[in-house]
Amino acid sequence: MESEFLSWIKSRLPASPHVLVGPGDDAAVLQGTETDIVVTTDLLCDGVHFRVGQDPSCRIGRKAIAVNLSDLAAMAAMPVAAFVAVALPRDGSDLAKEITEGMLGLADEFDMALAGGDTNTWEGPLVISVTLIGRSPPQGPLLRTGAQVGDHLLVTGQFGGSRLGRQFEFQPRVSEARLLYERFQLHAGIDCSDGLSLDSWRLAEASDCGVLLDLEAIPIAPAARKLADSDSTPPLDHALGDGEDFELILAVPADDAAKMLAEQPLDVPITKIGTFVEQRGLWNDGPEGQVEMKPQGYQH
Amino acid sequence: MESEFLSWIKSRLPASPHVLVGPGDDAAVLQGTETDIVVTTDLLCDGVHFRVGQDPSCRIGRKAIAVNLSDLAAMAAMPVAAFVAVALPRDGSDLAKEITEGMLGLADEFDMALAGGDTNTWEGPLVISVTLIGRSPPQGPLLRTGAQVGDHLLVTGQFGGSRLGRQFEFQPRVSEARLLYERFQLHAGIDCSDGLSLDSWRLAEASDCGVLLDLEAIPIAPAARKLADSDSTPPLDHALGDGEDFELILAVPADDAAKMLAEQPLDVPITKIGTFVEQRGLWNDGPEGQVEMKPQGYQH
Repeated sequence: MESEFLSWIKSRLPASPHVLVGPGDDAAVLQGTETDIVVTTDLLCDGVHFRVGQDPSCRIGRKAIAVNLSDLAAMAAMPVAAFVAVALPRDGSDLAKEITEGMLGLADEFDMALAGGDTNTWEGPLVISVTLIGRSPPQGPLLRTGAQVGDHLLVTGQFGGSRLGRQFEFQPRVSEARLLYERFQLHAGIDCSDGLSLDSWRLAEASDCGVLLDLEAIPIAPAARKLADSDSTPPLDHALGDGEDFELILAVPADDAAKMLAEQPLDVPITKIGTFVEQRGLWNDGPEGQVEMKPQGYQH
Repeated sequence: MESEFLSWIKSRLPASPHVLVGPGDDAAVLQGTETDIVVTTDLLCDGVHFRVGQDPSCRIGRKAIAVNLSDLAAMAAMPVAAFVAVALPRDGSDLAKEITEGMLGLADEFDMALAGGDTNTWEGPLVISVTLIGRSPPQGPLLRTGAQVGDHLLVTGQFGGSRLGRQFEFQPRVSEARLLYERFQLHAGIDCSDGLSLDSWRLAEASDCGVLLDLEAIPIAPAARKLADSDSTPPLDHALGDGEDFELILAVPADDAAKMLAEQPLDVPITKIGTFVEQRGLWNDGPEGQVEMKPQGYQH
């Protein structure tokens, strides 16, 4: 299975100037760079992150790459190469090819090589582990730790209801992050994978501060409203807690935030949804003063 | 689970000069280098590569790192950082810690950082995916593709019967490969993971030549003889096909091979077990001339 699959995949891989040795040797070789190297890894399992037989296989493959691209976006890094290890159910060779097609499409779109991997067959369900290697932006990676009290909390896009399809179709904000980081001062960033309120809180926690949300400003996705119609959970709660939006959550100094909001330099809207504050925790302005909120989202 | 485990693991990780940002952000950041980057990934599954409940967890963790180190050894690369993604069975937090202890021990021994990862819990069995990042040796990585007709086939150590324990206890030949590559001309190399005859054949195939084995010269491990006593498979067949020996298989020009064999510069013996030949395939000298052999070993 592996050797046949390897021949197939080699025939499908375009050459990349960054990859000196691709699949087929004991390891891959990437061209060195004085720029720092940014590495992220995410593992996806059948029944947790996707459902084989229900979700199309090529979308599963796309998602496995896309969630990792979103992590690179959160560092404002440039993707270079992907490494994919899979545990395939028996008779999974068609599955492997369909998954790989989904990966290749997205890798091509982001000018990133599939540079290596490991294929295993077993009695268990499908598991896909992806490691992406990227290059740091020249001014150093955008970390979670730099938010300052007074920074504005800005987000790209809309939130909630990703399970109606956006969890597979989302566009990793790689070029958006790089453009914003080049043109504006960004203090800190994270991507929204587990839930807007949870990830905003994580960003604040990593920066030793708190965050005050403006709940009315949160851009709610149409899918969140659609879900709300069927499950009686308010759309705002979907937006705060559903996760898998894979939008950028950024801490931006007030002046740059104002410029960014006025200019709206992306194809996707940028919205201010809060402010970083001194008191640790996640807060909102209630009618009787600030109320602490419990971060909602997917706790691993 | 992930946040508690993350706190625990952060407290256990020594600082590394190569790791600028370790676990806890969206991605890790490694210091850039003009040297080429060598990347390998191997995924291990319960029931295939180890058995939870039967094999001690810390040995499982050690093995997940060690098989990847062996791939870096086969490129004569220097390990820098490991990224570990796991799918843990429910209630697997003790398992996660024990696995990690096994990883940390080996990472420390090889002066390599555990720089990041991803922890998931699911209903399935344990899956561990490890990606290692290393640096190429100054003269470029040792590939599978450079063997030349007339080169000698040299191996470190002994073969066969790894399932009696060596599959977990083996020492990845990282420093051995680097020392040999510094001091001698090596044309090509591979590590023996799937079987001595299969991997020797792969090395020859990658180099567009064949290999003639000297079966009597093959160093047979005591464990292969022990297994042979109980299963009536000849010790030589165990040595040729068992795999998971994780020794180096090298193509060395005749002069350097002679020097290396005379000097024996390693703690582990180096043995000549064959010669690279023009005719593709795997061969041995039978009483009536050369006989083609079927490569034995673990076919993925």
